[in-house]
Amino acid sequence: MRFAVRSTIDYEVKTPTVFILNVEAAALRRQRILAEALTLHPAYPIERFAEDEGGSRFLRVTAEPGPFHVAYAGDVEVNMIDRAPDAIPEVPVGELPLDILPYLNPSRFCQSDLLGRFARREFGTIDPGHARVTAICNWIHEHVDYVRGSSDAQTSAYDTMVLRAGVCRDFAHLGISFCRALNIPARFASGYAWQLDPPDFHAVFEAYLGGEWFLFDATRQAALQGLVRIGVGRDASDAAFATLYGEAEFKEMSVGIEAMDRRAEEEPTVRAVGVG
Amino acid sequence: MRFAVRSTIDYEVKTPTVFILNVEAAALRRQRILAEALTLHPAYPIERFAEDEGGSRFLRVTAEPGPFHVAYAGDVEVNMIDRAPDAIPEVPVGELPLDILPYLNPSRFCQSDLLGRFARREFGTIDPGHARVTAICNWIHEHVDYVRGSSDAQTSAYDTMVLRAGVCRDFAHLGISFCRALNIPARFASGYAWQLDPPDFHAVFEAYLGGEWFLFDATRQAALQGLVRIGVGRDASDAAFATLYGEAEFKEMSVGIEAMDRRAEEEPTVRAVGVG
Amino acid sequence: MRFAVRSTIDYEVKTPTVFILNVEAAALRRQRILAEALTLHPAYPIERFAEDEGGSRFLRVTAEPGPFHVAYAGDVEVNMIDRAPDAIPEVPVGELPLDILPYLNPSRFCQSDLLGRFARREFGTIDPGHARVTAICNWIHEHVDYVRGSSDAQTSAYDTMVLRAGVCRDFAHLGISFCRALNIPARFASGYAWQLDPPDFHAVFEAYLGGEWFLFDATRQAALQGLVRIGVGRDASDAAFATLYGEAEFKEMSVGIEAMDRRAEEEPTVRAVGVG
Amino acid sequence: MRFAVRSTIDYEVKTPTVFILNVEAAALRRQRILAEALTLHPAYPIERFAEDEGGSRFLRVTAEPGPFHVAYAGDVEVNMIDRAPDAIPEVPVGELPLDILPYLNPSRFCQSDLLGRFARREFGTIDPGHARVTAICNWIHEHVDYVRGSSDAQTSAYDTMVLRAGVCRDFAHLGISFCRALNIPARFASGYAWQLDPPDFHAVFEAYLGGEWFLFDATRQAALQGLVRIGVGRDASDAAFATLYGEAEFKEMSVGIEAMDRRAEEEPTVRAVGVG
Repeated sequence: MRFAVRSTIDYEVKTPTVFILNVEAAALRRQRILAEALTLHPAYPIERFAEDEGGSRFLRVTAEPGPFHVAYAGDVEVNMIDRAPDAIPEVPVGELPLDILPYLNPSRFCQSDLLGRFARREFGTIDPGHARVTAICNWIHEHVDYVRGSSDAQTSAYDTMVLRAGVCRDFAHLGISFCRALNIPARFASGYAWQLDPPDFHAVFEAYLGGEWFLFDATRQAALQGLVRIGVGRDASDAAFATLYGEAEFKEMSVGIEAMDRRAEEEPTVRAVGVG
Repeated sequence: MRFAVRSTIDYEVKTPTVFILNVEAAALRRQRILAEALTLHPAYPIERFAEDEGGSRFLRVTAEPGPFHVAYAGDVEVNMIDRAPDAIPEVPVGELPLDILPYLNPSRFCQSDLLGRFARREFGTIDPGHARVTAICNWIHEHVDYVRGSSDAQTSAYDTMVLRAGVCRDFAHLGISFCRALNIPARFASGYAWQLDPPDFHAVFEAYLGGEWFLFDATRQAALQGLVRIGVGRDASDAAFATLYGEAEFKEMSVGIEAMDRRAEEEPTVRAVGVG
Repeated sequence: MRFAVRSTIDYEVKTPTVFILNVEAAALRRQRILAEALTLHPAYPIERFAEDEGGSRFLRVTAEPGPFHVAYAGDVEVNMIDRAPDAIPEVPVGELPLDILPYLNPSRFCQSDLLGRFARREFGTIDPGHARVTAICNWIHEHVDYVRGSSDAQTSAYDTMVLRAGVCRDFAHLGISFCRALNIPARFASGYAWQLDPPDFHAVFEAYLGGEWFLFDATRQAALQGLVRIGVGRDASDAAFATLYGEAEFKEMSVGIEAMDRRAEEEPTVRAVGVG
Repeated sequence: MRFAVRSTIDYEVKTPTVFILNVEAAALRRQRILAEALTLHPAYPIERFAEDEGGSRFLRVTAEPGPFHVAYAGDVEVNMIDRAPDAIPEVPVGELPLDILPYLNPSRFCQSDLLGRFARREFGTIDPGHARVTAICNWIHEHVDYVRGSSDAQTSAYDTMVLRAGVCRDFAHLGISFCRALNIPARFASGYAWQLDPPDFHAVFEAYLGGEWFLFDATRQAALQGLVRIGVGRDASDAAFATLYGEAEFKEMSVGIEAMDRRAEEEPTVRAVGVG
């Protein structure tokens, strides 16, 4: 499947501000960038970091006071792993690679240490594997209301467990927390999400199963095979589309994604989707 | 039913300390004290307060440094309301007496304002009445583990909702929170609990239904018709067996209750039990 | 001093809704209501409760779907206790009246049990008395920013202690928590506040000192001798101007207070102000 | 300076349990391991991971039911950076290396996003540099009590900010949070701490200043130039001496460190100590 993605973000910068931007499609083996363009206005110099382990591409820009416009457009071919869920096992902790282990630890918004008893009670007796993480997503979908404006940038999985309302990042944080509590490595992923309505940056989560990272979306608001991944991290604090050091007012944002070929429409939705 | 209750508490007082004690059986219309004795050693002067609305009997004592021993023994006849649960409705907020209204408000350990969405999702469609509060107790019993030492004096219903473990006071706080979130007045009650094993002060909760306060125990560890009520309040902070102002080390405690007549054994357990 | 106070509140009621309103000036020995008028539109029947211990006057009204307008106007003479702060001692717990004791307990928004160590460290060595509570207010004024919109209806003193920003109710909750932690009974009070800009319902707190309740305002935004008290309670959850059971949309509100005599301008501001 | 370090940990394993152990001295440019021995009893096979960026050396072992004994002894030469504090500047975010950026993000126990206003109020006007982080440590030392048993494995900086008591890990978490809130990268470090009394694993924190990681210890309980570093991470969840997946009972632990040369005694303590 091939997608045209684009985003624009506008700020009114008040003081010289360092922006760490993460809006470009990630460089993944299964996500090929055919063409892309990043435009800044004013055209401040961009500093590019080497890609990190998850393929995230961070930019650093220092903007001066005044309007600051960021635009990205990409033509991306996505060939996610597409496998029968039944065949995807969990990996015992004793066999996990070292660089995966930190994704078992609790993080700012994913207090897996506190959610452990619940996770074990609710999901502990389900057969390990991809289907268990799907069961986690089903639980979240059934027990948490998707309510725009019900949470904020400080809301954590601990809170969502009680408040039972949130948006995509809260759904992801809860899913991550439950997985980690069950010794399944899990991380946060942001992306351009095909068919998401209204269009916006989307947040889902990835669980490490059968030696690969598989995507999960407890909101059920987008088709996973149509997710053009941007960034990953332990939770939302690692994968913001923009992190600002300085003072700038967010003005507006626009996000879009379009399928560029016919295949998209015919994709099955019941299969496990992985990023590798 | 008639019960012999007793308790002893021992402290090592470090500095002159004011004790607010609440260990005597409450003076309720349906709980008649046939005989009782309170012994302090040393025999410090006791200041008795007029009984409060819930029948709680508070004592104030100032103890000097050294050992301080409190002993209470009572012979109490309990004739709780015993009614068919089906016939006990909820009282619409528009018809509640004023002095009952504060029991709808959130309190230190019962954040009913935060647990509202969950309570409405889970219990909102159940027919109002005594059976709905029983459904609340069943949910707590099924979803929270009774684990000695899993909580402390600062643990609130918000925490228990996530941690899913607690002791009797945590079970009561959760029940109270759910009730209040559903506009059912609810309060915390402490007591001597027949058949509780091991013997200890027990905590349950009361919900205001059909114009009376009915008892509920989500722990299912004691027989409600065998609860000799001591104190009530918005939550545990109002109904401690002892509140200390000063410095004293808690040494040990012993609590006991025995049924004094045959009837106890024959009591049905499926009926609604109220204190009036 | 004599004040003309007024308030109007407008709702769009969606479903039949019970309103517990608390907008009328309290009936206090030191606050005489010379004239007043409460107008509801539509003119639903009002149910008045007997005044509670703190003089709060609650109304209960059931409103049907449609617009609902509440208006209150009062002409109130305030003769607060006006005493030299130095002469006002704290009351040892061993000498507090029973009905005052609950104001030592933690409550939903005032976790005095958790703030105790800080309170004792920071204020424990200050001489007991009115001046110590003033020191508490000074600390809050210096260490917490008054920022409109920085907190919400769920924000507690625990949060404000970390976040260091809030509005009048948060300042009051923090003051109450510190007092209770130091064994000074304290409670939340709402009122019409002379010279508050912009005009709004105001929140302050009361501490029980020398056998009377004295007013404190850590925000320093209003003159305490010009506070026309409305309601009191353990914290904001007990003293809302309106508590709704049902569904209604808050539309707008207007609050006003004017001094009706010259004396107001000449009032000293350094003295202790009490409600009795 | 040269140190002999040793530790033993004993478990009673209940079910086959994966241990991720982190007890060996880290492999750092400025910390040379002259000799060492790791002994497991039973002698289960050890899996060693490549050293991570911070030099931490993790081991993975699967232990079967029964007693499990871990012993480590090392002879380590430490040559920390020793520089005049005045000459060590903060690094502007615009100039930080990419792999340092995550240490600006909030983490499970370091909610720097919530502590930002306080940190800016209290430390925002202090001149940037090593001395500012020392000021942070001084503040913590003066405002938080070191109280064994006052916190647990779930206690976060948010809690410590209110509760004002904790142990070394809580002091470190608070220091890390304040640094991150001020845009100073900071991370958690565990180690063998010379002169710590009683001997135990110690926790301190590192701040990234002038292009190097410098050590800070707000507890003032150990000499930083005598810290033999073991592990680092975003917070305590990344740097546990042992993380268990399975069921095992912790039995006992013993930790020791001795200076092997004279120089130790003569070390100045006022200088900045860095690990590079």
